[in-house]
Amino acid sequence: MMKQTIAFNRRLALRARASCVGPKEGQGPLGWCFDRVLEDDLLGQATWELAESEMLRRTVALCLERGNLPPDKLELLASGDLLNQLMPSCFMARAFGRPFMGLYGACSTFVEAMILCGAMIDGGYRRNAVCAASSHFCTAERQFRSPLELGTQRPPSAQWTATAAGAALIDTDKSPAAARLTGGTIGRVIDYEVTDANHMGAAMAPAVADTILAHFADTGRDFRDFDRVITGDLGWIGRNLLKALLEERGVAVPDEKLADCGASLFSQEQDPHAGGSGCGCVASVSCGYVLRRIEEGAWERVLLVASGALLSPTSSQQGQSIPGIAYAAALEADG
Amino acid sequence: MMKQTIAFNRRLALRARASCVGPKEGQGPLGWCFDRVLEDDLLGQATWELAESEMLRRTVALCLERGNLPPDKLELLASGDLLNQLMPSCFMARAFGRPFMGLYGACSTFVEAMILCGAMIDGGYRRNAVCAASSHFCTAERQFRSPLELGTQRPPSAQWTATAAGAALIDTDKSPAAARLTGGTIGRVIDYEVTDANHMGAAMAPAVADTILAHFADTGRDFRDFDRVITGDLGWIGRNLLKALLEERGVAVPDEKLADCGASLFSQEQDPHAGGSGCGCVASVSCGYVLRRIEEGAWERVLLVASGALLSPTSSQQGQSIPGIAYAAALEADG
Repeated sequence: MMKQTIAFNRRLALRARASCVGPKEGQGPLGWCFDRVLEDDLLGQATWELAESEMLRRTVALCLERGNLPPDKLELLASGDLLNQLMPSCFMARAFGRPFMGLYGACSTFVEAMILCGAMIDGGYRRNAVCAASSHFCTAERQFRSPLELGTQRPPSAQWTATAAGAALIDTDKSPAAARLTGGTIGRVIDYEVTDANHMGAAMAPAVADTILAHFADTGRDFRDFDRVITGDLGWIGRNLLKALLEERGVAVPDEKLADCGASLFSQEQDPHAGGSGCGCVASVSCGYVLRRIEEGAWERVLLVASGALLSPTSSQQGQSIPGIAYAAALEADG
Repeated sequence: MMKQTIAFNRRLALRARASCVGPKEGQGPLGWCFDRVLEDDLLGQATWELAESEMLRRTVALCLERGNLPPDKLELLASGDLLNQLMPSCFMARAFGRPFMGLYGACSTFVEAMILCGAMIDGGYRRNAVCAASSHFCTAERQFRSPLELGTQRPPSAQWTATAAGAALIDTDKSPAAARLTGGTIGRVIDYEVTDANHMGAAMAPAVADTILAHFADTGRDFRDFDRVITGDLGWIGRNLLKALLEERGVAVPDEKLADCGASLFSQEQDPHAGGSGCGCVASVSCGYVLRRIEEGAWERVLLVASGALLSPTSSQQGQSIPGIAYAAALEADG
């Protein structure tokens, strides 16, 4: 039994993928690869929270459509988001009426859901499952920081919560698929006593390092075994902190192999400060870009490591530090 | 493949159980069966939120102690609570440094975690796991309703969020155990358009009926196959609504077999209004009372059906209805 890592026995196919992002994300370097770019990030809804839920619903619906799976044949829907009590995910799940499991791992939720779905299918408990996650800049800012109306100045270390959603359909169907989910590593909660809610990269980097080292130790793999190790939401500052932490532990990090969803979603010119973040960042970049690159044959094997900053408005207001966690998923080309 | 139900193949032993409750819960009809009754529900902490997290930490630690499992041998910790971003669970998990998965199913979280842990062990991915959940009256009131300091009058239909935590250790060790986890049913999000955050029983009863009917349809079982069908947190009003909903669907409900954790935790004299609620209610009553009754041989087979009201302060303030969900776990005497 590996300490934190799970190896799946069946051929778990990532059958279909869907991604949806907001206007700013659509103008970023990866804008071309997303299935839907919203013109209006309110989606005609009465509130930002309902808009995030609707964006997530449309993304899951598109994923099922791409996988030619009628919604009533879906056997498990696992989803999460950043808002209190997972309101966007719960309201989204209401629209499908299928078996639902809500998860919370902050920005790491998409990969946490991927591991849950993988285990449920590999174990033979479900034949198919959709893992999904979302975030929305306007809902996250007022939830974790300040209402947008205040026009609060954001410090350079602050990250920009992506208005985005991603969904992936996993099954064991024999036909060729874009990619396979071969394993996952369950993270531990790590806290380096960072208390600045505007410095998430620093709060999460130690957990990402811990999970990458755990995956390497459990599997005997290292950077040489992967075309890319893609972290979620560390941003430009956090990515360099991760590099330093890994090198401190004697792990050489080939620059060209280490990528970060949050550092890829926006260009510096868009002034997202330290980079993108949010459950929807990893989810949309994974479904729109990472799985596409594997599908195109550009990459054979990728380690996707999503990280979450486990703060709450309450814990921040109470001066508590920000614990971090990270989950890893091993993605491989099919065939 | 059953529609919503999972049947476990291995002998999943509920190896150890621990429960901790607050003073009011300790004075209730079940006070005698809990492992710890707090004299001070602040547990010497600076805030109610930190107190809830500390109560949960102590409960998980006691559960590991009862199971003679050194914390560093724990292979999965799955936990959730009612607070935004699962602050009590995440801060609790930080203290153990073991593989952690955060879940959110409102008051149904304990059974959702039980199903996740069951699948992870039955599938052979983990050798042992602890499922846990907590709630605290003082943190929940200010999170979902009003700060206690306002002294808001509570309507008769309001339920009393239990200050309680429960934790169960599951493994596949051959030695005799108190009880076994033989299966679980994953709920669907059901919404009957209830908008009153002080009438949770009504919001959750339809989801509980849906999950019980799904379990019966999937397994061919009915009330005759169980010594008890124990729901979580419906309270006295919700329990009668569930009875009516099931009878509407042609399912005869033997009164003596239908019990509810929320209707059992407090006595009417304690004036909890409609009954107890909160993740900690099902968790503590399951670990302190239900599993004890099975262990004592009083019950052979129990269907534990925990329900959650999927509202958030934001959705309530925005006038949205309250979706509900329920998860079921089949518990059987060992041997």
